[in-house]
Amino acid sequence: MLIDRLIKKITDLHAPIVVGLDPRLDQIPTYLKEEIYTTHGRTPAAVAQIFTQFNKAIIDQIHDIVPAVKPQIAMYEQFGPHGITAYLDTIAYAKSKGLIVIGDIKRGDIASTAEAYSNAHIGRVNIDGETIEIAQTDFITINPYMGYDSVEPYFADCKQYDKGLFILVKTSNKGSADIQDLELKPSPWGLIKTHPPLYERVGDLVETWGKDFIGEYGYSNIGAVVGATHPSQAADLRKHMPKTFFLVPGYGAQGGSGKDLFYLWAKNYGAIVNNSRGITGAYQTDKYKTDEKDFAKASRQAVLDMKADLEAYI
Amino acid sequence: MLIDRLIKKITDLHAPIVVGLDPRLDQIPTYLKEEIYTTHGRTPAAVAQIFTQFNKAIIDQIHDIVPAVKPQIAMYEQFGPHGITAYLDTIAYAKSKGLIVIGDIKRGDIASTAEAYSNAHIGRVNIDGETIEIAQTDFITINPYMGYDSVEPYFADCKQYDKGLFILVKTSNKGSADIQDLELKPSPWGLIKTHPPLYERVGDLVETWGKDFIGEYGYSNIGAVVGATHPSQAADLRKHMPKTFFLVPGYGAQGGSGKDLFYLWAKNYGAIVNNSRGITGAYQTDKYKTDEKDFAKASRQAVLDMKADLEAYI
Repeated sequence: MLIDRLIKKITDLHAPIVVGLDPRLDQIPTYLKEEIYTTHGRTPAAVAQIFTQFNKAIIDQIHDIVPAVKPQIAMYEQFGPHGITAYLDTIAYAKSKGLIVIGDIKRGDIASTAEAYSNAHIGRVNIDGETIEIAQTDFITINPYMGYDSVEPYFADCKQYDKGLFILVKTSNKGSADIQDLELKPSPWGLIKTHPPLYERVGDLVETWGKDFIGEYGYSNIGAVVGATHPSQAADLRKHMPKTFFLVPGYGAQGGSGKDLFYLWAKNYGAIVNNSRGITGAYQTDKYKTDEKDFAKASRQAVLDMKADLEAYI
Repeated sequence: MLIDRLIKKITDLHAPIVVGLDPRLDQIPTYLKEEIYTTHGRTPAAVAQIFTQFNKAIIDQIHDIVPAVKPQIAMYEQFGPHGITAYLDTIAYAKSKGLIVIGDIKRGDIASTAEAYSNAHIGRVNIDGETIEIAQTDFITINPYMGYDSVEPYFADCKQYDKGLFILVKTSNKGSADIQDLELKPSPWGLIKTHPPLYERVGDLVETWGKDFIGEYGYSNIGAVVGATHPSQAADLRKHMPKTFFLVPGYGAQGGSGKDLFYLWAKNYGAIVNNSRGITGAYQTDKYKTDEKDFAKASRQAVLDMKADLEAYI
């Protein structure tokens, strides 16, 4: 099962790390961009080639030390159809190198619309009898605001193609408090009349939704996004969601560190921590400053250092 | 301002109606598909052409009787880059016919990711100095689960390019109750200790977020999605959100009717009602059954009938 393959890779590599592939033009070496601009102009088609080459170089340097990558589709979608081509090519290349791919798409819709997203990202499209796989993504991220109807349509593809979801529960941003932290009416059957926060209730729902997808390590293909920037809330969620594997954003650039994460692991590595700019933009920082032609080597070193930071607390 | 242009068009046409352009291959006439399959095979490129031709024919028949169309991006996204091309071509064609376009994308993310979505859909992308418009969409739909950080990044483009948002508040699906209806802790300063539902609090937030974007009719460019299938909840939200214009899904196929909607209008048409399959798939229903070559004429008749249903209650 997918979640077992992910946990096995994490264990074998001692690396509960996913590298976010969120390319931004201002983080890409000039030599690489200029080469392509010369032949293609400053066009979306050029950007697609630039992103793909940049990502491939990073993947070549990290595929043997991390289990997974997570392209953020927004960074590609903004360049239209060409951008989507770069997104799909990046996924295909990562898969060819043995990586598990988490498509960070945060879609959220219902019924036939959700089915269409599922077809696009983890299933197949059917063109009057011709069945085609558009994306080779393993997991996708999903927004639960519309309720069970916006999650259930993905389950058929999760079953049929052994795919998985990470459902937003408590995100790493400051504004996550606006809605996710709202306090609810106490449960009528609770002995103690505390007001649970919304994210806890959403966590309980996700734990329930995942019950038919549990693998041999005790975790489900239906995971949750739980930010690294709210340690006590994450610890609370870990208790509520013992069978839910966590995708953890917010490490590094957003302020979370290894120390904040230790209660996430539970048994058998119950979480994977994302780092995007901290890895792919490493060559631009003082710590890893290097010739821009060696940008991907700096990314490799940044992964090794992150691994050391996390290992101290696992 | 955009919201004023929308309300003026609704008033002039007596039609608070937006036609959802959510093409599905099983709702497209066979003659149209076969022609294109013959030359392009059953490929995503063929589907893109089929969708574009189908949408153009519908737009030709309805552009003079409705103010707006709403393509649902999932239906296009599932066919990869070619699908996105069809989505963008549909929007461009609708704009060329004078329609206001609501991109139903339901994106929800933060910081530079949200900015990337904004660039893609209502702003511009910058390719090292070259500024390009990818989509000509006027409004987009947005998911608020991640809080203010996931809404604020769109405001700059809303201001600069006179664009708008419809933020999910209470959706039309059954499962919307799972999270949106959760009862909250009473406000500490309230006289009566009732437990407000989450959607009401989200509605209050949206009303606040929209306060800098209010046009001459008293409504904001920052609107809300409020389903037609929960009339009493919609009426409650109307009271909480006097300056927020509503995009109303759930009419027709999902069970809502004109009778359920009358309290949405408030002053100056404060809402626009979506119908997708009920219009674009009309030619397949018993009521409008016709030769498939006349599919778009059936759509026009379905719009006129919907207009009559709504007018009885406005």
